[in-house]
Amino acid sequence: MQNFVYHSPTKIIFGKDQIQQLDRLLKENNVSKMLLVYGRQSIKNNGIYDAVIETAKRNDIVLYEESGVAPNPDITSVRSGVATVKKHNIDFILAAGGGSVIDCSKAIALGALLDEDPWEIYLNKVTATDALPVGVIITLAATGTETNGNSIISNREAGQKRAAKYQISKPKFAIIDPSYTLTVNRHHTVAGSIDTIMHVLEQYFAATKHTETTDYMMMGLINAVIEHTNDILKGNDSYDARANISWASTIALNWILGVDKQGDWATHRLSYAVTNMYGTTHAYALTALFSSWAKVALNDAPDVMKPKLKLLGQKVFDVEEPNAVLQAIDNLFESWGANTRLKAFDETISEDDVAKMVDHTVALGSVGHVIEVNADKAKEIFLESLNETMTT
Amino acid sequence: MQNFVYHSPTKIIFGKDQIQQLDRLLKENNVSKMLLVYGRQSIKNNGIYDAVIETAKRNDIVLYEESGVAPNPDITSVRSGVATVKKHNIDFILAAGGGSVIDCSKAIALGALLDEDPWEIYLNKVTATDALPVGVIITLAATGTETNGNSIISNREAGQKRAAKYQISKPKFAIIDPSYTLTVNRHHTVAGSIDTIMHVLEQYFAATKHTETTDYMMMGLINAVIEHTNDILKGNDSYDARANISWASTIALNWILGVDKQGDWATHRLSYAVTNMYGTTHAYALTALFSSWAKVALNDAPDVMKPKLKLLGQKVFDVEEPNAVLQAIDNLFESWGANTRLKAFDETISEDDVAKMVDHTVALGSVGHVIEVNADKAKEIFLESLNETMTT
Repeated sequence: MQNFVYHSPTKIIFGKDQIQQLDRLLKENNVSKMLLVYGRQSIKNNGIYDAVIETAKRNDIVLYEESGVAPNPDITSVRSGVATVKKHNIDFILAAGGGSVIDCSKAIALGALLDEDPWEIYLNKVTATDALPVGVIITLAATGTETNGNSIISNREAGQKRAAKYQISKPKFAIIDPSYTLTVNRHHTVAGSIDTIMHVLEQYFAATKHTETTDYMMMGLINAVIEHTNDILKGNDSYDARANISWASTIALNWILGVDKQGDWATHRLSYAVTNMYGTTHAYALTALFSSWAKVALNDAPDVMKPKLKLLGQKVFDVEEPNAVLQAIDNLFESWGANTRLKAFDETISEDDVAKMVDHTVALGSVGHVIEVNADKAKEIFLESLNETMTT
Repeated sequence: MQNFVYHSPTKIIFGKDQIQQLDRLLKENNVSKMLLVYGRQSIKNNGIYDAVIETAKRNDIVLYEESGVAPNPDITSVRSGVATVKKHNIDFILAAGGGSVIDCSKAIALGALLDEDPWEIYLNKVTATDALPVGVIITLAATGTETNGNSIISNREAGQKRAAKYQISKPKFAIIDPSYTLTVNRHHTVAGSIDTIMHVLEQYFAATKHTETTDYMMMGLINAVIEHTNDILKGNDSYDARANISWASTIALNWILGVDKQGDWATHRLSYAVTNMYGTTHAYALTALFSSWAKVALNDAPDVMKPKLKLLGQKVFDVEEPNAVLQAIDNLFESWGANTRLKAFDETISEDDVAKMVDHTVALGSVGHVIEVNADKAKEIFLESLNETMTT
């Protein structure tokens, strides 16, 4: 186990109708001028928008809005929000929506206190030392961003997608009402569950030895997500199924299960290139690459990968042989309607396309800890995913 | 799943030599006058005492001491600490030791800002609304008190042991260096592991339905604790085994696995009476009663207990039948040298003794959520534990 610091100060308010706690939460944070950040119609349909407006009025909070934040939020939304904050001396940012809205809000909160363009943060050219406080009302169980310091921002103009990780970005509070996720469609429900499982797997596959406590807990979390997702997809949808998945998605990337080891995270970086090229929903870009990454890692670092795949197989899939475990993961994702091969996004994908994705992946240096993914290795993984089926 | 608020702001600094972070932590908390609370010799033997003295000097912190805090800390230590704090206007309390030292420190921190006698808090006669900040250096993996708001204090004069639970009691930081636990003897190593498992089971046995995410994670945590404890008892002691148990003990009572359900906790309250009468180490009082409580609960609330015991059996003990699962738990504890029958503490235990323990248990009202443990039920559970072996 490795040394670590774990500090998760976000107050989590979880459950039905917890939006009613917003009054108290805004008071606790002494909010006077607030920027509400959201996407499009969904928070107007589920009552969040009206509740925020009324709560702001009741508490004499001056409200500004940054709306239209898109999936894979763009730096243009961040810049627009930063400009609003600076113009009106806004002191609090309230994110209402899914992971994209929350990440955009964190980026605005970091950028608001800087003179430089906020994109500089994501290029690692500027280090933020302070941030405006952010509160969160989350409507989608997926990213875990509601209690962590991560934000992932795209720059479509530059063809880039980048991540930043700051302790100061951790939200002050997160209202998590799983009821909001009951109306999420099949595509995004599956995406959320994949996201949660992949967050766990990225941390689980680590070269750090002797992390059984969190490893075993991770297997339990994955089993619960699979069980409840299968139930929902079979038509047995319920508040409790959604609540289990919601709490799992929060814990999965709250870092309590991952701080004790050096998680790999190469699949995430590789997936950014796919999303950047094809606009693929984040989770579906992950499934297109995971088993390809794992195949290459199994070959290069069998001492790490074999025992990890064995435990995963035993506890989750009832198989043990490494390739059988990978096939079982791919079968699970395919059964949920996700593709596990890159070829599925682009029948005519070319060597040039692969070269572009390799460049995108390693633009900020190599990535990965189980194996180091440099340009050659990234190419090997993308090419592995071009096979029609998993090679054995 | 039930609605909940989860707020765990304690900064955890985990790993080898993390005492070196104390400088930074005291600065972050603007400490100027500090009360160091500890037990007897152990922190002088393992270097913590000297490190604290030097760190205080380096940072111009005036240091006071409250030493000699005993297991099952007594209200007299709390009163003494409160008097010192009030006399010298102390602004920070540093606990260095095991759960007893930490609980005593939390009690001092609550009492320091009250005019009333601190025991009033534990009798629920006074509600504390503020507390001095507490920092923790923990030397034993067991209670989980390092990141929660609980404190348990005894009053030997009155023959009472009581618990208080305050959000404001959560420590500002917790230094957890599992190295300190390498010198803990077999008796207390086992006690710590039992404590951790019992904390999980108290939360796991709950009438709240559909909490699979945390239930499955709990099973993983218990498996890791059993595995590493068995290793240590077999002579395969190591930093990593201790680190896994340490992190498990923190997570077990950090509430992240238990906030989603209404945990039972009757076994704990029942055990206070045993400790109060026989001076039994907390964990060993728990094992003396757990299966007796579970037998009675299985009889009275089979709809709750049967599926819970089945899952526990499947995931941890490889058996399924409820009584077989309870026998497997008792066998595990007995294999570690713990007694699972009250009779073992007192061959000549009388009906009067049982009546006294019943009174102690229900003095603050009935307890328990899976079944309500009133005086009659408490008596039934104590009597069940007087049998030589588990009844089936």
